[in-house]
Amino acid sequence: MTRSEDNGHTNGAFNEDSEVSLDIPTNTLYHTSRDCIVQEEQSGESESCLEASRGCCRSLRHNIFRKKTLYKRFPHPDYKKDYIFGDLVAGISVALTVIPQALAYAGIAGLDLQYGLYACFLGCFIYIFIGSSKDVPIGPTAISALLSFQIAGGSWQIATLLTFLTGIIEILMGAFRLGFLIDFVSGPVGAGFTSAVSLIIFSSQMKDFLGIQTSGNTFLQVWISIVNDIHNISWPDFILGLICITLLLSLRALASCSVGPKEGKSSGQALLTGIFWTVGTARNALLVCGTAGLGYWLSVSGQEDLVRTVGFVPKGMPSFQPPPFHIDAVVNETTGEVLVDGQSFWDMVSTLGSGLIVVPLIALLETMAVVQAFADGKPTDATQELIASGVCNVANSFVQGLRSNGGIARGAILNASGVRTQLSNLYTSVIVIIALLYLTPCFYYIPKAALASIIIAAVVFMVQYRVIKPMWHSKKTDLIPGLGAFFACLVLPLQLGILVGIGINVVFILYQAARPKLRIETLATSSGLKYLMLTPDRCLIFPSMEFVRKVINKQGVKSTLPVVIDCTHIYGADFTAAKVISTMVMDFAQRQQPLFFYNLQPRVAQVFEGLNKDLVVIYDLTTLHSKLAEKGSA
Amino acid sequence: MTRSEDNGHTNGAFNEDSEVSLDIPTNTLYHTSRDCIVQEEQSGESESCLEASRGCCRSLRHNIFRKKTLYKRFPHPDYKKDYIFGDLVAGISVALTVIPQALAYAGIAGLDLQYGLYACFLGCFIYIFIGSSKDVPIGPTAISALLSFQIAGGSWQIATLLTFLTGIIEILMGAFRLGFLIDFVSGPVGAGFTSAVSLIIFSSQMKDFLGIQTSGNTFLQVWISIVNDIHNISWPDFILGLICITLLLSLRALASCSVGPKEGKSSGQALLTGIFWTVGTARNALLVCGTAGLGYWLSVSGQEDLVRTVGFVPKGMPSFQPPPFHIDAVVNETTGEVLVDGQSFWDMVSTLGSGLIVVPLIALLETMAVVQAFADGKPTDATQELIASGVCNVANSFVQGLRSNGGIARGAILNASGVRTQLSNLYTSVIVIIALLYLTPCFYYIPKAALASIIIAAVVFMVQYRVIKPMWHSKKTDLIPGLGAFFACLVLPLQLGILVGIGINVVFILYQAARPKLRIETLATSSGLKYLMLTPDRCLIFPSMEFVRKVINKQGVKSTLPVVIDCTHIYGADFTAAKVISTMVMDFAQRQQPLFFYNLQPRVAQVFEGLNKDLVVIYDLTTLHSKLAEKGSA
Repeated sequence: MTRSEDNGHTNGAFNEDSEVSLDIPTNTLYHTSRDCIVQEEQSGESESCLEASRGCCRSLRHNIFRKKTLYKRFPHPDYKKDYIFGDLVAGISVALTVIPQALAYAGIAGLDLQYGLYACFLGCFIYIFIGSSKDVPIGPTAISALLSFQIAGGSWQIATLLTFLTGIIEILMGAFRLGFLIDFVSGPVGAGFTSAVSLIIFSSQMKDFLGIQTSGNTFLQVWISIVNDIHNISWPDFILGLICITLLLSLRALASCSVGPKEGKSSGQALLTGIFWTVGTARNALLVCGTAGLGYWLSVSGQEDLVRTVGFVPKGMPSFQPPPFHIDAVVNETTGEVLVDGQSFWDMVSTLGSGLIVVPLIALLETMAVVQAFADGKPTDATQELIASGVCNVANSFVQGLRSNGGIARGAILNASGVRTQLSNLYTSVIVIIALLYLTPCFYYIPKAALASIIIAAVVFMVQYRVIKPMWHSKKTDLIPGLGAFFACLVLPLQLGILVGIGINVVFILYQAARPKLRIETLATSSGLKYLMLTPDRCLIFPSMEFVRKVINKQGVKSTLPVVIDCTHIYGADFTAAKVISTMVMDFAQRQQPLFFYNLQPRVAQVFEGLNKDLVVIYDLTTLHSKLAEKGSA
Repeated sequence: MTRSEDNGHTNGAFNEDSEVSLDIPTNTLYHTSRDCIVQEEQSGESESCLEASRGCCRSLRHNIFRKKTLYKRFPHPDYKKDYIFGDLVAGISVALTVIPQALAYAGIAGLDLQYGLYACFLGCFIYIFIGSSKDVPIGPTAISALLSFQIAGGSWQIATLLTFLTGIIEILMGAFRLGFLIDFVSGPVGAGFTSAVSLIIFSSQMKDFLGIQTSGNTFLQVWISIVNDIHNISWPDFILGLICITLLLSLRALASCSVGPKEGKSSGQALLTGIFWTVGTARNALLVCGTAGLGYWLSVSGQEDLVRTVGFVPKGMPSFQPPPFHIDAVVNETTGEVLVDGQSFWDMVSTLGSGLIVVPLIALLETMAVVQAFADGKPTDATQELIASGVCNVANSFVQGLRSNGGIARGAILNASGVRTQLSNLYTSVIVIIALLYLTPCFYYIPKAALASIIIAAVVFMVQYRVIKPMWHSKKTDLIPGLGAFFACLVLPLQLGILVGIGINVVFILYQAARPKLRIETLATSSGLKYLMLTPDRCLIFPSMEFVRKVINKQGVKSTLPVVIDCTHIYGADFTAAKVISTMVMDFAQRQQPLFFYNLQPRVAQVFEGLNKDLVVIYDLTTLHSKLAEKGSA
């Protein structure tokens, strides 16, 4: 299997709407990195080693707010003049993608469309100073928008508070180096989650795509309401949507078209390839412009009701103010009717609930997917990304921005546009500000179906069906957490769904800890003395001890031969294990059956000997055989 | 260290008020048994083995409601005539203990005292037919009473529903063989929980012991209120309490006094030893009788306010009726004021909450502690105990009984009294019924301080301070879950506290899964070819893979030597591991560095090869060395 084929198969779970085809090592997308490696020298005969890998461990003990660490958190690359062009092209390319995406994702989050744009300039600008990766474009993503909708329920106040508080939590997670937590989202769970997200977003867009009314919170309810209202389908909306999707998918394919030979293109071929790539990459912006023009034309020709458009988007910059820490009640002054219930800070926080943990976790997964995809084997720094994302979101919450993080699609555009440093974000920010100041009146005419098409054409590539086959060939039981996460995310709120998936995986780990395997052999020494060799295959800790004790006692009682427990594979033990081993030693002593521990690692022996000094530990076969002979003749 | 010393040190966590000193192998008290042993034959050179241990695995697949299984659930021992005397003495001894205990524990549960007695006859009687152990006396225990109080808050309706629903859950847990769940309560967590329970119960009895008012829910609040009200201390109550405790502790010591030599006592010495034991064992009953007499004398001599007594306990049997599935509102008919709020079934169930899982778990821990303490090495059956306890509690809920299970104190009395079969429960039931029918008027005069003394004299032996020292010598980190469970149980509701302890332990297991240790050695073949040998010490699963990949890649890039991964200790892997290994194989191929997998178990190799067929697996050193030479010369 070649490398590129493999990438096709194991398309990264967070590789949502990857616009350009790149050789991304998506196999490693789910994992963070840490600059701490814990390695312990084992007992025995290791020849050399390890010095280098020790240093990293020490770094954990460093004060995380030391000058050097702070400097690391605020990198100032030596900027060279020839970086400018790459950064400029990349910044503009991303801006052309992020503007239509921001409008569309604000719709997913159930907010007025300007809140999407509000999230695309301040955080993006701040990332220049504290981000660790040139390839991470901070902005709303489909996943973060859907999470925001499910958690905040379309209230801009709660959504803004979510941005603020999750930012604070990310900074704290970074300070305490909790980035490793994403290691607990396994590949299958990540794939299940992403697939469910794409289906949920797909369903949510049917409303605008078909021009019908939908209702319901779960995936099933939405589809039932779609079927019930399908007779009210708005054909113009639907046809426009279909045309848009066809166009988008064609242009997406065009972006990766290469004219002429791979190496040594003529200038004409290179130009054509460049044009194809540019048109393909800017397809969302082009589509928005084109369909907005259509909407404007319909409006001036008096046919404005033919397709539904986005409508009024407020012009200008958002006000700079703290995020809302409470919601005032809105009362109709004439009737005294309460239109909007007031909410205290704690009401709002309890609405956010487990989202406060899940959102930073998913955001880190998405961001690290981008960082690692383009790291080219260089070390990556999850801690710094956590802190950077946290600060950017705290800043965004002061301009009422939607929750943001790095997205693989825009990351791929940055990389393919030849980005050199984080400064590309400056150009993106400036263009978004220009759009806010001058372009919002044009947004009025964008057809809703066009925005829905942009989202649909993006999320269809997030369904991870291709991961099932290799999973089936490799480890079938891994389908259980994967499918568990998938269905749980479809029927439960997303933040609970992914926790269910992680929970299933944790149960797998616990089961492994609780049920070691024991190999039982009857062996003989050179002098013909028979003995029973029992070999547990992993560490002895509390959930497995009763089980192990029963097996060993049963075998011991049954055979009356001397028993040797081969401890080669036992790399750890706890107090409960020590207690059970201590009882076992006494049981064997009582029935005068010899019991030896063979090859027990000193640090495990220390645990056992804390409770019972009588255990006989032997480290080589010769001693074992002579001891056996001694006991045999006694 | 001798056996008895060791027992002293590791006094079982659930060994609450062990009345008699017995050589109980308390080291094994926390664990259940299962009749299922899962053993897998490992690859390689095992000589023989395993047939015997396979059969058990098959039994899991049996239909649990087959005729044979049902018969096993309802044992009918061949009853012999000479069993009668032992069972009769044991039954009466336990009855004399359980009646004062039931009154006292009902007080801990915040209920009227008769509810304790209601729990001591029907379940006890049913246990004769379905219990697996002759040594388990079903009845309220201090732990179950405290849990009932914390969960039901002193409402007899909710407490009865708790008895019913936890009974149903126990039956289901038995049917699905979930008894192994108690393996996840480690020794340290069990000790922490039991110690916290004893302190909480001790504090709750200060009210009656000192004759003051206390308030508050947490341990700290109760002690603050004690200190605040200490000036209202009732000296007669306090002095009576002190005398009672002194008496009880002296009689407890007397019970284990042996007159004359250990073997070959004269008949006088044997009689005296017997009398000591009887008086010591019946001390609670004697104390209750004595102090009730005192109370009666004070009452007839007009000094009835000197010490506070228990007061009216309704006479006669409870009504046989289904447990209450809702609570009717109580309204004052004249004023229309709601005295007691009505509660629906779901209100009541949501009050029970996590208690529905924690109570059966703790009950099984307590019961199995008794079963295993007196099993004399014979196999025990947690599944049957679960079902038996479930049926007994469902039955008890029809007579409004408090939640019940086996208790180590009464178990020790049964065993020491020479119990032969479960029939002893018949005599206990009959005596409790007689007490209900005829003795309740006498209970009126029992001083509250006397009951408090019985409880205090029992729970002081539940504080597991002696477990700390061996834990410190064996595995210091195990103090963390132990102390965590202890403090969490003190400040949180008990059922949450123990879950916190289990949670801390689970984090330990997960950390172990996430951070394998890698040994790195530079070795050489006989022909002098150097290579790098990397040895991970445990299974490769998702939380550890990113970590392992980083270490291996780092070492690989640093040294340029061929890399051999020694997979001897890798007993399992998952899809995430396979993906990372697959990437790693491609990385090494790209930089043309040889990578070999040494001694990879076939079932793990299968997982890896499901994703990448290119990996080179070698099973012996000769092949490894020749392959290395091949690559070295290439």
